Amino acid sequence: MGSTPQSLTGIDLSAAAELAAQLRVDSVRSSTSAGSGHPTSSMSAADLLAVLVGRHLRYDWDNPGEAGNDHLIFSKGHASPLLYSVYKAVGVVSDEELMTQYRRFGARLEGHPTPELPWVDVATGSLGQGLPDGVGVALAGKYLDRLPYHVWVLCGDSEMAEGSIWEALDKASFYELSNLIAIVDVNRLGQRGPTEWEWDLDRYARRAAAFGARVLEIDGHDLAEIDQAFATAADGTVPQPTVILARTIKGRGFSEVEDKEGWHGKPFPPDMAARAVAELGGERHLTVRGPRPDPAPDHQPGLDPTAPEGDVPSARYPVGDKVATRKAYGDALAALGADNPRVVALDGEVSNSTHADEFAHLFPDRYFEMYIAEQQLVASAVGLAVRHYTPFASTFAAFLTRAYDFIRMAAISRSSIRLSGSHAGVEIGADGPSQMALEDLAMMRAVHDSTVLYPSDGTSTAALVRAMAGRVGVSYLRTTRGAYPVLYEAGEKFPIGGSKVLRSSPDDAVTLIGAGVTLHEALAAADQLAEGGIQARVIDLYSVKPIDTETLVTAVAATNGCLVVAEDHHPEGGLGSAVADALLNAGPQKVWLTHLAVREMPGSGTPEELLAAAGIDAAHIAAAARDLLNTR
Amino acid sequence: MGSTPQSLTGIDLSAAAELAAQLRVDSVRSSTSAGSGHPTSSMSAADLLAVLVGRHLRYDWDNPGEAGNDHLIFSKGHASPLLYSVYKAVGVVSDEELMTQYRRFGARLEGHPTPELPWVDVATGSLGQGLPDGVGVALAGKYLDRLPYHVWVLCGDSEMAEGSIWEALDKASFYELSNLIAIVDVNRLGQRGPTEWEWDLDRYARRAAAFGARVLEIDGHDLAEIDQAFATAADGTVPQPTVILARTIKGRGFSEVEDKEGWHGKPFPPDMAARAVAELGGERHLTVRGPRPDPAPDHQPGLDPTAPEGDVPSARYPVGDKVATRKAYGDALAALGADNPRVVALDGEVSNSTHADEFAHLFPDRYFEMYIAEQQLVASAVGLAVRHYTPFASTFAAFLTRAYDFIRMAAISRSSIRLSGSHAGVEIGADGPSQMALEDLAMMRAVHDSTVLYPSDGTSTAALVRAMAGRVGVSYLRTTRGAYPVLYEAGEKFPIGGSKVLRSSPDDAVTLIGAGVTLHEALAAADQLAEGGIQARVIDLYSVKPIDTETLVTAVAATNGCLVVAEDHHPEGGLGSAVADALLNAGPQKVWLTHLAVREMPGSGTPEELLAAAGIDAAHIAAAARDLLNTR
Repeated sequence: MGSTPQSLTGIDLSAAAELAAQLRVDSVRSSTSAGSGHPTSSMSAADLLAVLVGRHLRYDWDNPGEAGNDHLIFSKGHASPLLYSVYKAVGVVSDEELMTQYRRFGARLEGHPTPELPWVDVATGSLGQGLPDGVGVALAGKYLDRLPYHVWVLCGDSEMAEGSIWEALDKASFYELSNLIAIVDVNRLGQRGPTEWEWDLDRYARRAAAFGARVLEIDGHDLAEIDQAFATAADGTVPQPTVILARTIKGRGFSEVEDKEGWHGKPFPPDMAARAVAELGGERHLTVRGPRPDPAPDHQPGLDPTAPEGDVPSARYPVGDKVATRKAYGDALAALGADNPRVVALDGEVSNSTHADEFAHLFPDRYFEMYIAEQQLVASAVGLAVRHYTPFASTFAAFLTRAYDFIRMAAISRSSIRLSGSHAGVEIGADGPSQMALEDLAMMRAVHDSTVLYPSDGTSTAALVRAMAGRVGVSYLRTTRGAYPVLYEAGEKFPIGGSKVLRSSPDDAVTLIGAGVTLHEALAAADQLAEGGIQARVIDLYSVKPIDTETLVTAVAATNGCLVVAEDHHPEGGLGSAVADALLNAGPQKVWLTHLAVREMPGSGTPEELLAAAGIDAAHIAAAARDLLNTR
Repeated sequence: MGSTPQSLTGIDLSAAAELAAQLRVDSVRSSTSAGSGHPTSSMSAADLLAVLVGRHLRYDWDNPGEAGNDHLIFSKGHASPLLYSVYKAVGVVSDEELMTQYRRFGARLEGHPTPELPWVDVATGSLGQGLPDGVGVALAGKYLDRLPYHVWVLCGDSEMAEGSIWEALDKASFYELSNLIAIVDVNRLGQRGPTEWEWDLDRYARRAAAFGARVLEIDGHDLAEIDQAFATAADGTVPQPTVILARTIKGRGFSEVEDKEGWHGKPFPPDMAARAVAELGGERHLTVRGPRPDPAPDHQPGLDPTAPEGDVPSARYPVGDKVATRKAYGDALAALGADNPRVVALDGEVSNSTHADEFAHLFPDRYFEMYIAEQQLVASAVGLAVRHYTPFASTFAAFLTRAYDFIRMAAISRSSIRLSGSHAGVEIGADGPSQMALEDLAMMRAVHDSTVLYPSDGTSTAALVRAMAGRVGVSYLRTTRGAYPVLYEAGEKFPIGGSKVLRSSPDDAVTLIGAGVTLHEALAAADQLAEGGIQARVIDLYSVKPIDTETLVTAVAATNGCLVVAEDHHPEGGLGSAVADALLNAGPQKVWLTHLAVREMPGSGTPEELLAAAGIDAAHIAAAARDLLNTR
């Protein structure tokens, strides 16, 4: 396949017409062979893709990692038959693979695209995410890589109803991303019937233009119009993203289904497929290549990955000083940014609260303000990770719930992104429950292959932020609003998956487990218990996932099975669940567990009042420990 | 307070000017007294609120439940000092309460508004949610209540960056909600500095107009302009929502802070507050009332809550027939809709998959298509619940993650909404991981006071859907794509918080716990084990939250502590965690637990292949049981 001719100019339009027919035929064949898939949603966009791949997408198909390659993202991920048919047409997937592997178990041609395929940047299939991810890639291209590649995103018309599409266009125009091109396949039909606005292209045009895009309306089946639109879109003459609105017909090319309801997500039965292929002129097995990117410079014109930018010493916090973990996050991020020029930060208009502003002030070229658009915040991080940057995205932990679908999809994208959520729990005080993250640990633990960290002091925060930079997958740091005493000397190690036993003695009668603010409460509780002659073991469970099962099991054995877990989180899915899961999976042990968590709806108040009301302060932890010892 | 004069026309503009000054003064006083809050964000909108409350908002303050009342929603919930100052001005909150209770522990004047106050419809404070919620209220007003009230929503300019705002305007124009008025307080400054588009009102205007709104641009400090805009907005002459873009100055009225950065979310120190109050002309204690609503008709012109609409018999599924629980959801919803005219359904453009279409076909007047906009899907449900409807909102369970912030806030709103998520887990097969809900149980369990149900057959689904209708709070039903045998006779009871022991004998050696598809796998595993002479108890844990701890504890005792839990969900926060939490909280027991869950990233395949690959099918359950018995 490496010997396939690849021109600088691409194929001509008559060849593109042949290619389009092949893409339709192969979309039909592959989905019928699989007995599943979306042929009609593929057929509407086949002309668009034929012209794009044949004449405009600058891509070295033999080197998907080539820095200068354009990016092609199928935001309408259900059109995977079309995407995989493109891969066949350029010769990187065989007809046999397409016909026998699509949607099959263990195969890389999954129902919706994932980066299991080397030409796929991000997983799609949850609509309204490909374009936001593309904004992240385009940010990298314009501001960091400083390479002339374009990001082409194929969108469906149904997904224009997702707010995330408009967050994406807003940021694309704010950041003047002329390298971003959204191609909207307006085929009028959704899953269950007509879309909201059907073929009202002018309406979409007004919206996209109002959101700052250059808009081109075309007939999505007129190859010359398509060709002209793509040439215009990539001309770099306006400091705007381009949105191409293509009027298309769902099922185009097969008269039995064209523009008909009831054919979304349905493969044709074999006899129908045969008629479709015949109407489309039969099978073809063209191999075509479009233009290649200009040779990438030896040395990337953007960031130099070898040269540290300045010298920001890691903060060293004296034990006992009061430091908020969110402040330590900002300090650590700034120090990391100095060491590693691929570290990039983003925030959702609260950087003076999350302390991402420390990084922003030092490294403004590597900081992207996302304003109050948490979905785009996470999507931008995913897009930056596509280009091998090391993104850290922060907002209030409560507001990361806004982006849960994006975080879930980031895991499916095998994306390494780092999230920092500040202002966790009732500890924030007067602002009340809308600002209190009380579900975030549950949410983040449930993400595939995630890392969930919850430090209690400045020293451990600094160490964990540094560890996150090298972590694969989605990692999450939960930080606290208030300042609490530094517990650890600078230089102490905090391996992910570890914990710290802060108090222990041969006479420990009970184990107190906390993280974040509740660790400080647990330490105070241990002091109170000691006054009453009860020795308590205290564990800092800073690594919630993975969890240090061994230390927990040891503590159970050492303290006669008496455990108190306290967390500033709802009782489900957080620290207590992590401990319960770990212990039950570790095999049978006699465990008397008291789980203190936020069980009632909090209101406003001081942190002290709210911790007490939730029953997770030192007094409640100590009382729970005494009760355990009295009643077991 | 009931004797306060209340006119039909409201106060004049000079009185409104006095009222505006009072609102500013009280915003300053209350936040300074609390030592926390957002005075400057309140001051920018004080003129808007003075004119609104004094002359346009038709509201019987002594009867917040009056059906004809307008609705006032602070989407910018951080301007709570302004809202509470309004409550003082109309005489429903005393100056003493405002000055001593704001943001205090246990008080109803929380940092951000919640329905703990009878005049608050929905909790706000997570930006970009009040307007979407208002769309739901306006849908109820226009299509269900058929009452002439208006829904006035005060928005901030920062929150215009949230995609959910555009989902809301899109649906408001689609449904021609002329009863919805968004007032955008464009004060140019966000939390950490200038907003994205500062005072570029024309840009906001183009966007709102493109999204179908009538747009009025005004000086937000010119009372006559405000008055005219409100009169126009409420005139009902156009079939569109109205967006009023008000150019305002943050901190307006106090020259030391006007339009200055660094004053977001900061109360003034007492000396500054004294200067602010002086500059604003000193304290005032006016009590004013604006216009009242027209007397509501004795009989609501919309739905008749006493008359069933038609007769849709509950489906009765013969035991052994194969029925998908998503299909049973649709059947049950339709039957419920016939019995109870306050039941309303919504879906996110997948009603032919979730089977909400069965309701839509029978009761089109009570069905709202939200297209692919899951945030607005949930927000509409919240808004409909404000008007005492019984909403059921459905989409693929995976895509409810898109709305997690809205679900979390629904709990803070004390909203009773019902969510149905279909296509749970790897069981869906070929579509791949983007469409598989594998985090939803964790997410929904962590919501305060939530109910989480996961039926395995048609009969239990029908019973649980009916139970959900009467449930307070956020309730969630997880349904499965494929059809599986009916297990229960029609008429069997399924109390929330219960479970079913489907197999048991005095000789049970192991307990198998499942729900949804894994219950069927557990039953097959029990058959396999029985062939080898091992008796297994099988529990249908259809109520994941609340959970039937008693049955679990009994099973642990009866089967020597040997449990196998299998779930089609990631291992964190779902069925296994619910069992672990319940058992550990129930006190010490010897438990040998094997937890089977989806631990690797799935791809495409058949349901059987994917259940086997995840290790949650009958063969793996049986093997896990044998291993447990061999090794314990």
